[in-house]
Amino acid sequence: MHLFKPFNTICDLKTGVLSPPGNHIVRYLADMKEMFHDREAAETMLKENPKVYEFYNVVIPEEDGHLQHCTSIIYPGKVGKEYFMTKGHFHAVAGTAEIYVCLAGKGLLLMQTEDGQAEVLEMYPGSISYIPPYWAHRTINTGDEPLVFFGVYRGDAGHNYGTIEKQGFSKLVLEEDGQPCIIDNPRYNPRGGD
Amino acid sequence: MHLFKPFNTICDLKTGVLSPPGNHIVRYLADMKEMFHDREAAETMLKENPKVYEFYNVVIPEEDGHLQHCTSIIYPGKVGKEYFMTKGHFHAVAGTAEIYVCLAGKGLLLMQTEDGQAEVLEMYPGSISYIPPYWAHRTINTGDEPLVFFGVYRGDAGHNYGTIEKQGFSKLVLEEDGQPCIIDNPRYNPRGGD
Repeated sequence: MHLFKPFNTICDLKTGVLSPPGNHIVRYLADMKEMFHDREAAETMLKENPKVYEFYNVVIPEEDGHLQHCTSIIYPGKVGKEYFMTKGHFHAVAGTAEIYVCLAGKGLLLMQTEDGQAEVLEMYPGSISYIPPYWAHRTINTGDEPLVFFGVYRGDAGHNYGTIEKQGFSKLVLEEDGQPCIIDNPRYNPRGGD
Repeated sequence: MHLFKPFNTICDLKTGVLSPPGNHIVRYLADMKEMFHDREAAETMLKENPKVYEFYNVVIPEEDGHLQHCTSIIYPGKVGKEYFMTKGHFHAVAGTAEIYVCLAGKGLLLMQTEDGQAEVLEMYPGSISYIPPYWAHRTINTGDEPLVFFGVYRGDAGHNYGTIEKQGFSKLVLEEDGQPCIIDNPRYNPRGGD
């Protein structure tokens, strides 16, 4: 039996920056422009290609007795009326949960099952959101400052981005009259990729 | 397949109090007096029977696709020279990890394997401690205010308190000249209960 040694990672609880950073991934608009509803607005913004979000993933074995953990930082901003958000994904091992602890900012957590059920939870400092097995998850920054949260999931859970890339989420979160508004996504295609 | 619904729990990030509280467990000195080294001091303090720690456990199915999560609050105090601490345990499914995110206060995280290896990590706001599979874990408040942390572990991990109750930890954390000092535990019995 290989015995893995305990260790600390230090998190700035205001900014979410991890030290050491582990796997640090930055997503710019160019990395996910097809995911926003207003493609004309996305195309125009590509000249500046803003940073939409980033995350820091502690390096942990991809085994089911371990726990992956990371911080995510979603920047404030919009593409047209649609708030900056993550790509969103199912887990590759779909029957595994995830937990988000919000540290700063405010936003929404949009979730969806393979058969099209949708759920939304609010995120704000101190909200602990439980994403049960089989729910895809996307986070959306509806505020004016970075949305920062800590996430934990099973070591072997992995990521399945493809299903969401093909099908989209069934809901969009747009700003209407200065407030977040959840509407049906006219481009949602539950049979996408079949 | 039973689909479990997403939900939020609200955490006071300063005090660790959860709302709703879930399973709320309080440990008084009388619940763990044999765990402190100075039994005479423990006996004397039993008249007041102080609260040593408490935790709030969100109610989650005990299945391996789920994630248990909780907050723990260790109060400041000492029994003789030994700081207030948790009982400490292995997981019943020993090969499962745990993560602690410290929110407030300061302390030490003492860990030990079945074959007697010991490790210690510091806890302070923003420290994220990774307790890998097969390590028993105990937290110790070495400060003057409550030590508060958020914990996550696999849904089916469970608790094995018995091994530590019989064997003890190989190390004690005592205050010497106002500083925490880690010493060998003369009562450690690695064959305890055999």
